[in-house]
Parts: sequence; structure tokens; C-alpha cells
Amino acid sequence: MTTALGLVAGVLTTASWLPQLRRSWRTRSTDDLAWSYLVMLSAGVGLWLTYGVAVADVAVVAANAVTLAALGALIALKGVGRGREEAAR
Amino acid sequence: MTTALGLVAGVLTTASWLPQLRRSWRTRSTDDLAWSYLVMLSAGVGLWLTYGVAVADVAVVAANAVTLAALGALIALKGVGRGREEAAR
Repeated sequence: MTTALGLVAGVLTTASWLPQLRRSWRTRSTDDLAWSYLVMLSAGVGLWLTYGVAVADVAVVAANAVTLAALGALIALKGVGRGREEAAR
Repeated sequence: MTTALGLVAGVLTTASWLPQLRRSWRTRSTDDLAWSYLVMLSAGVGLWLTYGVAVADVAVVAANAVTLAALGALIALKGVGRGREEAAR
């Protein structure tokens, strides 16, 4: 029972990044997302990924690899957005 | 060693919500945060909290309780922001 609970929790917290990525891609607006939030969360998720490898837990590795990829895309979108702002000044 | 890795990962992913909350509180702008992202993530974190109770893991319970509180505050901020927009129309 608890394994199923953990699995559904992992799928939800990982899949939640898709609507956020879709919105940020569609609006190209990521101003409301704090840089320190994205960077700290990425560092933490990266450590969870390392932890998953260390304890050989495929679910932890998979969930955090997908989340890290989504965070990478969001950081790239935010970086591109800022580059465009500075160029427009 | 892996316990320490998990602990630091948990602290980082939980603490990352503070700068996001501070930004959303200061700017009162949460438009770039997708509703479905916040709701799906909250559901997943709620399940992780239940999972932590079920397996009696204090670290999982603590990290997800703090994250759920931060998500609750963000959802409230976004809800208040939307109420103000509709009133202004």
C-alpha cells in the first residue's frame, strides 16, 4: 500500500512540472519565478537524484531526473527572457 | 553517508520555497505560476506527507509539511491576486 502511495506521490510531484513548463513556454514570462527558488530546488533535486543512485532506487532516480530536466528547461527559459530584456534596454 | 545526502537534499528542496514565497509576497504577482502546477504539486506533496506518516519517517513528514504550508500560502496569494483582478474589471 505505502509503495503505491509513494509511486502516485512521485508521479504527481513530477508530472506537475508539465503544466508549469507549458505555461512558461506559451507566455515566455517567468518573471514571477524566483531565481533562487529554481537554483536551490535544482540543487536539492540533483542531490535526490544522487541519493536515488546511491540507494539504487529506480523510482527516486526517475522522478528526480524528469524534475531536473524540467527545471533545466525553466532556467533556460528564464535566462533567455532576461537576455532579451537586457538587449531591449 | 546516504542519510546525510537525503537530509541535505530535503533541506534544499524545502528551503527553496522561502525565496519563492518572499518574491510572490513582495511583488504580489503570481501570474507566471500555473494553477495546475500548484494544485498537482500540492496533491503530490500531500501524498508524500501521508506516505511519511505511514512509514513513520520524520524527515519525510517534516519536509513535506513545510512544503505543503508554503504551497498553501502561494495558492492563497494567487487566489487573492485573481480576486483583485476580477474586482477591477
